[in-house]
Amino acid sequence: MKNSHYFDDDQVDLKSKYEKPKQPNWLFRRIYILTWIRHYDREKAISDLIAGITLGLTIIPQSIAYAALAGRSSEYGLYTAFIGSIIYVFFGTIPQVSIGPTSLMSLMVLQYCYEKPIEIVIVLAFLAGCVELLMGIFQLGFIVSFIPSAVNKAFTTGTSIIVALCQIKNLLGVKLKGVPTPKAFFENIKVADATVGITCFVILLALRQLSSVKFKEESPATRRLKKLLWYISISRNALVVFTCGMIAYFWIQKSSFEAIPITLSSKVDSGIPTIKLPPFAFIHDNRTYVFSDICRELGSGILVVPIVAVLANVAIAKAFVKDGILDASQEMLTLGICNVAGSFFSAMPTCGAFTRSAVSQASGVRTPMAGIYTGIIVLSALSILTPYFQYIPKSSLSAVLIAAVIFMVDFKPLTELWKTNKKDFISWLGCVIVCLAAGVEMGLLYGIILNMIFVLLRLGKPKLEVNVKKSDNLIYVHIKPMSDIYYTGVELIRTEIKSACVLYRNDFPIVLDCSRFMLFDTTFLEMLNAVAKDLRENNVLLILQFFPDKHKEFLNGNSNIRFANDRTLSELIVKT
Amino acid sequence: MKNSHYFDDDQVDLKSKYEKPKQPNWLFRRIYILTWIRHYDREKAISDLIAGITLGLTIIPQSIAYAALAGRSSEYGLYTAFIGSIIYVFFGTIPQVSIGPTSLMSLMVLQYCYEKPIEIVIVLAFLAGCVELLMGIFQLGFIVSFIPSAVNKAFTTGTSIIVALCQIKNLLGVKLKGVPTPKAFFENIKVADATVGITCFVILLALRQLSSVKFKEESPATRRLKKLLWYISISRNALVVFTCGMIAYFWIQKSSFEAIPITLSSKVDSGIPTIKLPPFAFIHDNRTYVFSDICRELGSGILVVPIVAVLANVAIAKAFVKDGILDASQEMLTLGICNVAGSFFSAMPTCGAFTRSAVSQASGVRTPMAGIYTGIIVLSALSILTPYFQYIPKSSLSAVLIAAVIFMVDFKPLTELWKTNKKDFISWLGCVIVCLAAGVEMGLLYGIILNMIFVLLRLGKPKLEVNVKKSDNLIYVHIKPMSDIYYTGVELIRTEIKSACVLYRNDFPIVLDCSRFMLFDTTFLEMLNAVAKDLRENNVLLILQFFPDKHKEFLNGNSNIRFANDRTLSELIVKT
Repeated sequence: MKNSHYFDDDQVDLKSKYEKPKQPNWLFRRIYILTWIRHYDREKAISDLIAGITLGLTIIPQSIAYAALAGRSSEYGLYTAFIGSIIYVFFGTIPQVSIGPTSLMSLMVLQYCYEKPIEIVIVLAFLAGCVELLMGIFQLGFIVSFIPSAVNKAFTTGTSIIVALCQIKNLLGVKLKGVPTPKAFFENIKVADATVGITCFVILLALRQLSSVKFKEESPATRRLKKLLWYISISRNALVVFTCGMIAYFWIQKSSFEAIPITLSSKVDSGIPTIKLPPFAFIHDNRTYVFSDICRELGSGILVVPIVAVLANVAIAKAFVKDGILDASQEMLTLGICNVAGSFFSAMPTCGAFTRSAVSQASGVRTPMAGIYTGIIVLSALSILTPYFQYIPKSSLSAVLIAAVIFMVDFKPLTELWKTNKKDFISWLGCVIVCLAAGVEMGLLYGIILNMIFVLLRLGKPKLEVNVKKSDNLIYVHIKPMSDIYYTGVELIRTEIKSACVLYRNDFPIVLDCSRFMLFDTTFLEMLNAVAKDLRENNVLLILQFFPDKHKEFLNGNSNIRFANDRTLSELIVKT
Repeated sequence: MKNSHYFDDDQVDLKSKYEKPKQPNWLFRRIYILTWIRHYDREKAISDLIAGITLGLTIIPQSIAYAALAGRSSEYGLYTAFIGSIIYVFFGTIPQVSIGPTSLMSLMVLQYCYEKPIEIVIVLAFLAGCVELLMGIFQLGFIVSFIPSAVNKAFTTGTSIIVALCQIKNLLGVKLKGVPTPKAFFENIKVADATVGITCFVILLALRQLSSVKFKEESPATRRLKKLLWYISISRNALVVFTCGMIAYFWIQKSSFEAIPITLSSKVDSGIPTIKLPPFAFIHDNRTYVFSDICRELGSGILVVPIVAVLANVAIAKAFVKDGILDASQEMLTLGICNVAGSFFSAMPTCGAFTRSAVSQASGVRTPMAGIYTGIIVLSALSILTPYFQYIPKSSLSAVLIAAVIFMVDFKPLTELWKTNKKDFISWLGCVIVCLAAGVEMGLLYGIILNMIFVLLRLGKPKLEVNVKKSDNLIYVHIKPMSDIYYTGVELIRTEIKSACVLYRNDFPIVLDCSRFMLFDTTFLEMLNAVAKDLRENNVLLILQFFPDKHKEFLNGNSNIRFANDRTLSELIVKT
């Protein structure tokens, strides 16, 4: 079943010209930096430096915001950003991919670790990393192809809507738990928080437009201006969060913490992350957690989180891979290392982020080396800026999150899919609804299983050709499936054979042409046994054309089964 | 995509001879008795009478035993047997099928209603019936084809092992709850119960062999003797249970209830079932249950029970259907009616039983009318015999159950499947293990999903032919999938196109031959969009051969996509 590259005979000269490129050896493929570091030059270094710094300015406010989304304090987001950026340099294959905190992983953490101690989140990162490593080792990258594009899109839209909905309370300073009634919600809006939040949101949207400003004439001055505007646009998150923090800081310096009417972030432990074993056993609120307790708390999250992370990561990598083929296994291994290593630095579960990868791409990244610079910026933020994080208004972080995700909400598929493929339409709509109603991982599962069922239903109706044929004055019923038959299609063949027998009152032998078959499973073979038994009672011969030798033994018990190729068919019919 | 019956031109004379049989009209198909009652004659009536009585003698002890297996008292089993037998006469299509209590449904009841009031079991029957009716109305019979034969076999074996294990405690008189340790188990065996149980079991196995006794010479006397032995063999359950009950009865008459060392069945409410609404709200142990409470108690059972029942029923019907095609929808409707009607007579959930259907077959049943006689026998048992049910030793009922199910435990697939198909082997083994470890419905689910994954994996590796072709001195890369492509196979095509581009350094246009495609889903179309975008950057043309018009719009945005048929291909390549 190998797919073959071959040349027509008169093209032999091509063969020598185009030789297959050599695969790098195992070590080089696994520690991927070895394949590109030898060709690393000044030009690439400068590009990577610029991209790395840009990414750093994006990742710092995002890390703080995503940590808040997961219900954790800012430093955990930054630990995650630091370790993800550094590790990817050595093992990652796609320069654009930015590993770190993401909305998806934050949502997962929120779901599986809601109001549970931070240690559980860190162990989740460790366990998720182990599962990802296993997936990489066993080359399970193919699971990505189980997600049809409609489901992928619905998943993105669903996740984005949930993130936005989660943040709308923080944006407006509503401090109610759970899902409030509309009345309670509006009564609890804090004017100061809402003002900050909405202002930030509007500014972010405006700054986003800066990069697409067009000038009438092109001159060196406008080109430089354009570059500047683009840079402001890219760093908008950092600018907004920094400015808000500054305002709050000076306001508090003039009066006091209590006087300020804005909800600020919580106090952050300062300092660089230290290496320590993930907390496999710890005490929290007078309760002792051992490893088995942690696993019980995490439940299905131990499998769901890494699978979702791998799916997201490979989807992003696929979007950015150039010339040549994505090594999905290597991406899974890298992600696994990021998570396992991260858990030693108190990081949260991590995967690639689509928005940041797009920023990398737009900043002209050349190699994964950019991650080093991003990592250094994050590290300096951790060592220098942490005392100031507590001055960042919560609603400004919500504005950053909402402004990032609303552009990923996409309802175009609603009309597009309706036109191209109704089944994809149903997948998309159902997946979005299930995501919102029952959680993103249920939505994903729904989409995957629904599409499996669609495929099986289609395979359940294989195309058959039924003919009455005449050869040398002998008449027989010839049944030929036009494609491979899977177990869901076996029933149809049985029905066709029985129908033919009833229609022709058992007068003619039945010939089943197996030439287009590739798979002979037990369901099919047993069906043949059962049909042969039925036919025997009516003295009808069942002739199997082009049936493989190795499965003939299974049908030994039937005296009315014959095997034939094209040549022997008429002989066989004459004999009986 | 309709499958076509057609004749070769010189066979037109056949067409007039063999006409398709007319379908009976809708009413006749639904109230199926109308199709056969007109041809019902004395001969059939006598056959049905004998079969019906034989079945009655089998179903009475089974009903009592299956009620005990579900943790309910005997009369509920008999109600179920009565209503199932009667209803199937009017709607059923297969004479052999015997609807009533089954080991499978008892297990399901045990799982979903363990130690819950009997009213919940009755409402479960009602809800399961409603779901079955819906499945019949929406013609969801195809779901049966989602179960490969290996999974079906494993499911039977798994269920049988569980039933046998559940009964081993009763057989030996062990009164411990849950799963006891081996030590506690052996210490708690009650000698009297164990003696009765094991004796009954051995007698049942011996009587089972009676029907296959062979005589040296054949004479009218031996033929009559053979018939007698066969009848004794078939009624062995009734004989054994009746004899044990008699012994216990006379023993108690001589001494007292307390003096007898054998565990007997509990006291049974005597009398014929009365029609009443299923208990949608009731009070039990000072707790009020309304409909929503009952639904919450049943949980996923509301869907799992009817699906399992339909699967079992259709599988049995398929095994016995003769000439012509099984009307799976009608079988589901009938099962639904049996359950809904049953819930008005305080019956438990019901479906067809394989062992009893085999007894029907062996007793020479001709039409579903036999159910009337079975029903009458069950009804008389209910009205006359109920006071005596309390004398039946529990261990004798366990012996009946175990002797029935151990012959359904079948480990042959272990070696057979290993030889024919490794995937089927894995399905079988895994399904048995999951059934035993996590319950039969989880085992079934495992089998179904595993096989879905196998199919998708296979579809993920479609066979492609990649050629470099030359036509009129033009060279192009020709990629042709040999079969229909599903979304799981899309990734491979993308990889092949990219590989070809890398190998031939973007020198030649790529031609993708879509002639064998039947399904164009969004995943495939989006892949084309993405690949076209990549190719455009390298100035490579993507030519789609035999691409359907209606999907061309989706690819409008790409300037380097061309559409061609065989004739226009070389023209296109010349132009560019």
